[in-house]
Formats: sequence, structure tokens, C-alpha cells
Amino acid sequence: MSASNAMSETTEFELIERYFKPSLSRRDVALGVGDDAAILDVPSGCQLIVSMDTLVADVHFAADDDPRGIGHKAVAVSLSDMAAMAAEPAWATLALVLPRVDERWLAAFSEGMLGLAREFGVQLVGGDTTRGPLCITLQLHGHAPSGQAIRRSGAKVGDLVCVTGAIGDAGLALRLRQQFGRGHQGPDREYLDRRLDRPRPRVQEGIALRGLASAVIDISDGLSADLGHILKASGVGAEVDVDAAPLSEAFRRCAEGMGPDEALGLVLSAGDDYELCFTLPETRVADLNVAAEAWSTPWQVIGRITEGDDLLLVHGGGRPFTLSQNGYEHFRS
Amino acid sequence: MSASNAMSETTEFELIERYFKPSLSRRDVALGVGDDAAILDVPSGCQLIVSMDTLVADVHFAADDDPRGIGHKAVAVSLSDMAAMAAEPAWATLALVLPRVDERWLAAFSEGMLGLAREFGVQLVGGDTTRGPLCITLQLHGHAPSGQAIRRSGAKVGDLVCVTGAIGDAGLALRLRQQFGRGHQGPDREYLDRRLDRPRPRVQEGIALRGLASAVIDISDGLSADLGHILKASGVGAEVDVDAAPLSEAFRRCAEGMGPDEALGLVLSAGDDYELCFTLPETRVADLNVAAEAWSTPWQVIGRITEGDDLLLVHGGGRPFTLSQNGYEHFRS
Repeated sequence: MSASNAMSETTEFELIERYFKPSLSRRDVALGVGDDAAILDVPSGCQLIVSMDTLVADVHFAADDDPRGIGHKAVAVSLSDMAAMAAEPAWATLALVLPRVDERWLAAFSEGMLGLAREFGVQLVGGDTTRGPLCITLQLHGHAPSGQAIRRSGAKVGDLVCVTGAIGDAGLALRLRQQFGRGHQGPDREYLDRRLDRPRPRVQEGIALRGLASAVIDISDGLSADLGHILKASGVGAEVDVDAAPLSEAFRRCAEGMGPDEALGLVLSAGDDYELCFTLPETRVADLNVAAEAWSTPWQVIGRITEGDDLLLVHGGGRPFTLSQNGYEHFRS
Repeated sequence: MSASNAMSETTEFELIERYFKPSLSRRDVALGVGDDAAILDVPSGCQLIVSMDTLVADVHFAADDDPRGIGHKAVAVSLSDMAAMAAEPAWATLALVLPRVDERWLAAFSEGMLGLAREFGVQLVGGDTTRGPLCITLQLHGHAPSGQAIRRSGAKVGDLVCVTGAIGDAGLALRLRQQFGRGHQGPDREYLDRRLDRPRPRVQEGIALRGLASAVIDISDGLSADLGHILKASGVGAEVDVDAAPLSEAFRRCAEGMGPDEALGLVLSAGDDYELCFTLPETRVADLNVAAEAWSTPWQVIGRITEGDDLLLVHGGGRPFTLSQNGYEHFRS
């Protein structure tokens, strides 16, 4: 970890570093924080998988959001990328740009960040701290046995389209928060808020998909947009039965006031659930059922890969469903 | 490369991506820009070396600086960290936060960045682009044969203290720019400006130090501060003859108007030269002379490692030299 700014504020930035002392020590970290660079041992026979994500104040979060949640999310987003590659996460680097040194903020941010990192066995091995507008860039480094990382481009005609967990929760939480504000409003809202603010990346599930799934992506931009990335990268189309989309009980109850199309639109286009969307050759269903016995979350078939390049959404036994909103239109090209 | 922002501006951000198309294709990049993460092949028998640096507008550069220079510097700073580890740089990831999509700025920034990256064989393999206050985080990934990366902590009593190239040029360029403004003012100022704006990281030199140098750091914060990091990490002191510090002809001519102490203060405390400071067992001098025949820059002995933990600066045949300013006080702890 190095800290740089154009002022002489060693003490302040030394202070910052204290909040990012490694909370675990991996044996494959030959040299962590404290030199010009970190030295890491990638396991023999494995490929290195790297993913970098930036969260900017007033864009990805409000500057007065709970810093614990911001720290959690900074790690969760990149862990979810690792999950989507079937990679085992190992090491993180952090570039933290801070307008000022606020010890309470730092303590809470670091708790959220390092807490989730520790849970997934990830060690912070370096980075940079700088004075400037609040902005967090986190890179995760993981690995997978050579050739076993799963890309977006492997979906084949006839493969099943599947998702983990329940989708739409985070999007509904955001919608309700915008409509009714924050605050405790019963267990359903608490559950939904937690899904939005403390997403659980599906790392274990991603690793279990090695050798089974033909393509994987994490649902950060909404199911239809993210499945769209798989279709584009694989040169195929898909038909998805929106009625098959797995919904949580809390979602069903809290979305009751909405029109059914509006609720389904949210399921298909809202991001931030960080579930996995994957394609699976039908011959591998039994194997996946065995692997998934250890999962903390169920998986569900919602459609099938088709020829062409269209994503056809159907509901009510085959009627086309038109999606009026298409998520954030993130893209990964 | 993924792009994310809270608005639907796919087209604009697709545009950005066009400026960061890989300008070279390394065979060890199994999957580059375009999926949830990149997949990289670290050479067998090598360790992975990673370093991340952030440049923030109005802190590390002026928002209206030549974007070509900003791009160059973003890569140079991290390449210099690789040099300081004796690592061979290979892959970069870039987190680019931009207030708006300005095509001319992007074209020039990308030219500066990818141009220097290409020269050193570095491929851009991923990252993130986001809307927000201008901020650039670049991570470089390199490798070195296991156990051959050089740390700061290996300096031993009796080792020679050495530097590559000439030091003080970038600091003097900045001082002159602050006093007299920019603009072409003859070949000396052009040379000094180039040293400040287009530093050449000593990557080849760093790699050649493998097996020879006992400790290395790059001079980004000033010789006395950076040598201080080696001393602290190694638990030793040093005596440095400031008269032995290698100065360029341009430095000597342009610093003529300064008092000698002021000029030497600049040499010792100004950063941004990105030369290497290293310690060398005296028995390895002949070997280094052979290795350095291929270097583009000379190296010079300026002192010796001592017991204790003090950095003693002497000049004029042994008189103590007192440094009134201590650089940026960056730190790497």
C-alpha cells in the first residue's frame, strides 16, 4: 500500500494504512503491503484471473451511505466477477481516493471491506491512497486450473438458461427506497435491503460450475442485459419464460401493489442482485444437481439457448413479453 | 473492459472503449478485455508482481495538462514500480473515471498511455470506465523468476548505495515551470521538461539488477526519502556523499542561478525522476559493470550502507549536509 498526495500529510495517511492492515495472511503472499509492489504465488497449473471495478460517490453510491455497506459492495462486485469466471478469489488491491481523513468513516469502510474479503479468504496485498473526490477502485485476483475458467462465449444451441438464487430483490429494494425512503419497515423490507446493500457473491457456486456450465455471467445489470452479453459473445439467441424467473417470498409480497408487468420488468431489468446466469448442456443437469447439494442457494432453469441472436421473452404459456426498460445499459464488450 | 455509470450512455462508453483497443496481443493473454475478468498465463517458475497507482486531477496533474503526458505518466509510474522490483511488466488494467466523454482528450490520453505500454510490451487486458471526477487508476502486473524479485529490505552494512541516470532533473523542471511558466526556452529546458513529463522507467536496468543488487527502490519521492525507505525496511543506515549525486549537464546549467545548497536540496528531495536507487555488495561491482554495458543510462555510487538507522548526508569532503525540505513525504509502509 502506498499513499501519495501533493501535500505533506504522512501522519494522516499512515493513519489510513492502519485501517487496512491485512486481516488474514495467505501463504501464497510472498510480499504484501509495504514495498513497490506485492509478490504473489499463483498456484502451479492455474491461470490468473483479474477483475477491476470502480465505485464513485454520487454515481454508484451516495456519499452519506453507510461506509460499511460501501466497503462490502466494493469487494462484493469484484467477487461476483470472480464467481462469473469460476475463479477462486485470492488477493485484492485497493485504490482509495478520499476527500479527507475521517476516522469513523475509514473504520467502518474497512470493516465492511475486510470483513467480506476475509470471509472469502481474500487478502489485501497493496494499492494506493490519495486525496481527492471519494472514489474506490478495487481489483481482485483469483485463479482457476488452466482452461477451466468459464467465459461468456461458450453457450450452445439447446443449452438450458439457468440462474442462481432469486432475482429482482435488489431492484425492488431500490424502487421501494426511492418511493418510501429508508428505515425499518418489517422483515420483508429488511431482507430486500440486505439483498441490495450486502449482496452475497456466488463464488462457491461459480467454482462448482467448472466443467458443467458452458457460459456464465453475473447479474449486475439485469437479467435481460446480462443474458444478452452471453448471447452476443456466444453468437446465439435464447427463449426465456419470465414466469419461471425465481422470486423470493419477500419480493412477491412487496411487489403485490405493482402491476404484474411492472414487477416482471423489474425482475428482468434491475441489476445489483449479483446472482449468476449460466447456460448448461442438458446432459449435465444431473451432475449439477449433485454439485448444487452443497450450495447455499438453489438454481433454476428459466429458458433455452436458440439459434439466431434474439432474446425472446415469453410468459403466460408462450405469449411474448415486451420489456419497456432495459436496466442500466452497462456493457461489457 | 467494462463500463458502468448510472445512466444509459452505452454509446458514449462504447466510444471510450474504442480508444483502448489492445495495441498489441501477448500470447500469455488467454482472455483480455470483454468478459467479467481477464485470464492470464503467468510463466511457470515465476512469481506474480502487482502494483497499483492512482493519479487524481488537481492533485497529481492539472486537469488541462496535455492528456498525452497524463497517459504516459499513468503507465510510467507503475512501470517504475515494476523496475524497482526487478519484474518484467506484462499486463495492465485501467480504471478511468471521466467527467465527460471528450474524444480529443481520450484519443491523446490513450495514445500516451498505450504508446508507452506498447514500448514495454504491456497489454491492456481490462478495467472499468465510469463517469465522475477525473481520476486514473492503473495496475501493472509483471513477473520475475521465483525468489528473484528484489525488495527494499535486503541492504547490508558495507553495501554501496547507487543510483541510475541523473537525478534532480524533474524537480528542477517543476521549479522552473513554477517560476517562469511553460514554453520552449531552449534545449536545456526542453530536456528537463521531458524528464518531468515523459519519464523513462528503468525497467531493463531493474531486471539486470537481479542477483546483484541487495535492495532497490524507484526515486519517486526524492532520493533521501526513498533511500530512507530502504534503510527502514533493511534496518540499516547510510552515508551519502551528495557531491557524488549524478547531475545532468542541463541541470548544472539551469541550476546555476540557485545557491549550491538549494540545488543540492532539489537533487536530494525532489521526486518524479523515476531513476532507481539500489544497494550493491562491493563484490558485485564488476558483474554490474558487465550487465550495465547494455543499459541506456549510467549508474553511479553515491554512498555506503552503515550500521545504525541514520541517513548521513555529507559534502565538500565530509562536512554534514542538512536537508531543509524532505520531498513530498509520500510513504510506503
